[in-house]
Amino acid sequence: MDPEEFRRAGHAVVDWIADYWSTLDARPVTSQDPPGTVAAALPAGPPTAGEPIEAVLADLDSVVTPGLTHWQHPGFFAYFPANTSGPSVLGDLVSSGLGVQGMLWATGPACTELETRMLDWLAGLLDLPERFHSSGRGGGVIQDSASSAALVATLTALHRASGGRWRGVGVDRRYRAYTSTQGHSSIEKAARIAGLGDEGVRPIEVDPETQAMRPAALRAAIEADLAAGEVPAIVVATIGTTSTSAVDPLREIGAICAEYGVWLHVDAAYAGAAAVCPELRWSHAGLEYADSYCFDPHKWLLTGFDCDAFWVADAAELVEALTVLPEYLRNAATESGAVIDYRDWQVPLGRRFRALKLWFVLRWYGVEGLRAHIRSGVALAARFADRIRADDRFELTAPHPFSLVCFRLRAGDEPSAALLERVNATGRVYLTHTRVGGRYTLRLAVGSPQTRDEHVDEAWELLRTTADGLLPEDDRPTR
Amino acid sequence: MDPEEFRRAGHAVVDWIADYWSTLDARPVTSQDPPGTVAAALPAGPPTAGEPIEAVLADLDSVVTPGLTHWQHPGFFAYFPANTSGPSVLGDLVSSGLGVQGMLWATGPACTELETRMLDWLAGLLDLPERFHSSGRGGGVIQDSASSAALVATLTALHRASGGRWRGVGVDRRYRAYTSTQGHSSIEKAARIAGLGDEGVRPIEVDPETQAMRPAALRAAIEADLAAGEVPAIVVATIGTTSTSAVDPLREIGAICAEYGVWLHVDAAYAGAAAVCPELRWSHAGLEYADSYCFDPHKWLLTGFDCDAFWVADAAELVEALTVLPEYLRNAATESGAVIDYRDWQVPLGRRFRALKLWFVLRWYGVEGLRAHIRSGVALAARFADRIRADDRFELTAPHPFSLVCFRLRAGDEPSAALLERVNATGRVYLTHTRVGGRYTLRLAVGSPQTRDEHVDEAWELLRTTADGLLPEDDRPTR
Repeated sequence: MDPEEFRRAGHAVVDWIADYWSTLDARPVTSQDPPGTVAAALPAGPPTAGEPIEAVLADLDSVVTPGLTHWQHPGFFAYFPANTSGPSVLGDLVSSGLGVQGMLWATGPACTELETRMLDWLAGLLDLPERFHSSGRGGGVIQDSASSAALVATLTALHRASGGRWRGVGVDRRYRAYTSTQGHSSIEKAARIAGLGDEGVRPIEVDPETQAMRPAALRAAIEADLAAGEVPAIVVATIGTTSTSAVDPLREIGAICAEYGVWLHVDAAYAGAAAVCPELRWSHAGLEYADSYCFDPHKWLLTGFDCDAFWVADAAELVEALTVLPEYLRNAATESGAVIDYRDWQVPLGRRFRALKLWFVLRWYGVEGLRAHIRSGVALAARFADRIRADDRFELTAPHPFSLVCFRLRAGDEPSAALLERVNATGRVYLTHTRVGGRYTLRLAVGSPQTRDEHVDEAWELLRTTADGLLPEDDRPTR
Repeated sequence: MDPEEFRRAGHAVVDWIADYWSTLDARPVTSQDPPGTVAAALPAGPPTAGEPIEAVLADLDSVVTPGLTHWQHPGFFAYFPANTSGPSVLGDLVSSGLGVQGMLWATGPACTELETRMLDWLAGLLDLPERFHSSGRGGGVIQDSASSAALVATLTALHRASGGRWRGVGVDRRYRAYTSTQGHSSIEKAARIAGLGDEGVRPIEVDPETQAMRPAALRAAIEADLAAGEVPAIVVATIGTTSTSAVDPLREIGAICAEYGVWLHVDAAYAGAAAVCPELRWSHAGLEYADSYCFDPHKWLLTGFDCDAFWVADAAELVEALTVLPEYLRNAATESGAVIDYRDWQVPLGRRFRALKLWFVLRWYGVEGLRAHIRSGVALAARFADRIRADDRFELTAPHPFSLVCFRLRAGDEPSAALLERVNATGRVYLTHTRVGGRYTLRLAVGSPQTRDEHVDEAWELLRTTADGLLPEDDRPTR
């Protein structure tokens, strides 16, 4: 495809996306087709001769989009949001067009330097502790996801806990990781990948009201392991747990980590973006204790997946843990020590130019635009929570400090699960569930930039009227 | 940014890319600016109020592109190619616009099913063994890179070698991985991440002529480890090593793996694409022994980074090794067992809709178009190798079965290194180096779709005339 063919086809694809976004609200948010529908509509092999882009776009409409879950739909309230935005898509388009692979500074100086600068911009935007800025020993890097950030933190923690021996001789079964029972599944997965096994992770109990980690339980677990001759290597605290957006008490947890010399990683995948707003920075109090921290601009900061922002307080330690230097990657810039080679900050060798989408987003929206986006999400969640509070058939099951509301029918697990199934079957909204204290709980997470008051109100109306059908008048609790 | 603003800005960005591609040949392939140049040109923080896209595009021209290594430049001969193409960029653009996160089938049925189908298309295109097709127990998935593929293979191999105990109790220091001394650094990195330590990897010697693994040396290493009570867990064979594109003898290696029950992973990151052409499939003979296999369409198959295609012969084993299922990811489709959840085939939880770019590429080029691309690379490399052979100051240092040519000045390491430095300093070409049998070797890897006869000829002219300046007439060897 030559540049002029690309120009023509590119305009058509841009138009296709603009039209898609304009018509999102009219589509069902989830596909109602059974498994195999899309696969059955695709031929068994590629064509022998090439086809025009128009043919592919036609199949995109007839085969692919009817089979999608539309994450950018204003009625998408499931999981956590995976926001994107026009400027993010355009930054990523430039990245695709440049086709730069920035594994080393030498293979893309601007790719590396823009990334360092963007992570400093984000650190300033969230008012992160000075230790994470690149002006000192620390610094930031883009990972694909908070899962990979947790893995990289775990590996560096093992390197530190073993006094540097891990790199040469590997782990043994003495090392332990700690997170609350509400910590994300990726923490367990990271520990498994790093060779600790699922039994190497200690689940720490939470306060039943707040769902936040109990520092006393963490201390007890660490002391028990030490007494048994085991080695506490890493604690992962969460700002905004996946189930309920609970905030672990970082100050108390951090003091314990400092006392016992344990690596503290803070996973703020979803709620980190809240710190863009000064009034929500209480959630990050105590972060100065952390050895590493991450949040996902791809969740709630208008930047398309994948873009996890990960910082460490001591970059040298991270690089020492992860570097492998074969002859074919040696170069003068690396040997000068004056540059960052981000390949040594992550699991894969290769890397895309993801800083571009951050740069486009941060410049298009500006600080005030990003704050307005976060505040809108918080306000929409509060609006919805008010509806829940006002209907005595429903109850909130956890605090809602950010843009996630957890709720259920007082009548129990079974009607609550039926309620979720019925509202999702309408295709107008998509919510998911969790369990809080063992009880079935629905989750409504606001995040799509297209979501407005009327969409939240429509979701509520659907829930309210569906509950009417599920709960006979005389079964309704009276209080 | 609303859809109409996106449409207007999107056309401008498409035009920017078309213009960039049209002017690539006139740019220096690498930046000659010192470290810090790009960073110094960027403000210390994001703007308070938003800025127009035009301002960002202007800085893209004035700050970013002058600081880049241009991977798509026709004079880019470094490392291995990281090809992209118009249809790949457009497929990725659609993916960005949809903003689908396909961690589960339920979160993007079409994202999952198109990916399964595209990996089957690729398996057919490369004529991979039947065991890797999704119609049986096997199947394919897109990983970000061959590094991650090696990691996932290593983890599944540990799961198998431990009889399933690895998942619960972790690794210990008895497990061993094997690859040739020419195996990629990511294999060592994968073993380190998995907790085996650098000492857990046995480097197997190669034939000095072919640079391919010696099966007898592999057998000896496995037997020595078994005798010492250690557990051989995984062998990684390479089709197309990074230094010289050597091809390990899969049939002999596979038979040894079968005999001792060791997982065989085949890393064909670069050269796998060659199997698109029937006349190059000799390189894949013996692949039916492999438990897993990967190659990178993002290297030599016109698909932008990141896109590693990874197959396993037994998908259930892979899923069992990697799955973690918290309540908030439970859903009816997963529990039906009728769908694939690709999150369980990889390290991160989240995933982009990368199958789209493969779909666009495979349909736009068709089988014949892709074969023509591979054949062009092989022919250009052969053309260059002929020039080397015809000048008795130069010598080839390894066979060139694909599109990589390894060569040096007979005069020795120092003039060879000086030659590389001088030709790269012109900004007209970018080559990298390696060592073969300890001796400094230049590498010229053809891959950019813009590279034509005249670019290879220009590279040769630069090398030849630069050598004139480096080697006084009377120092020239006579043979």
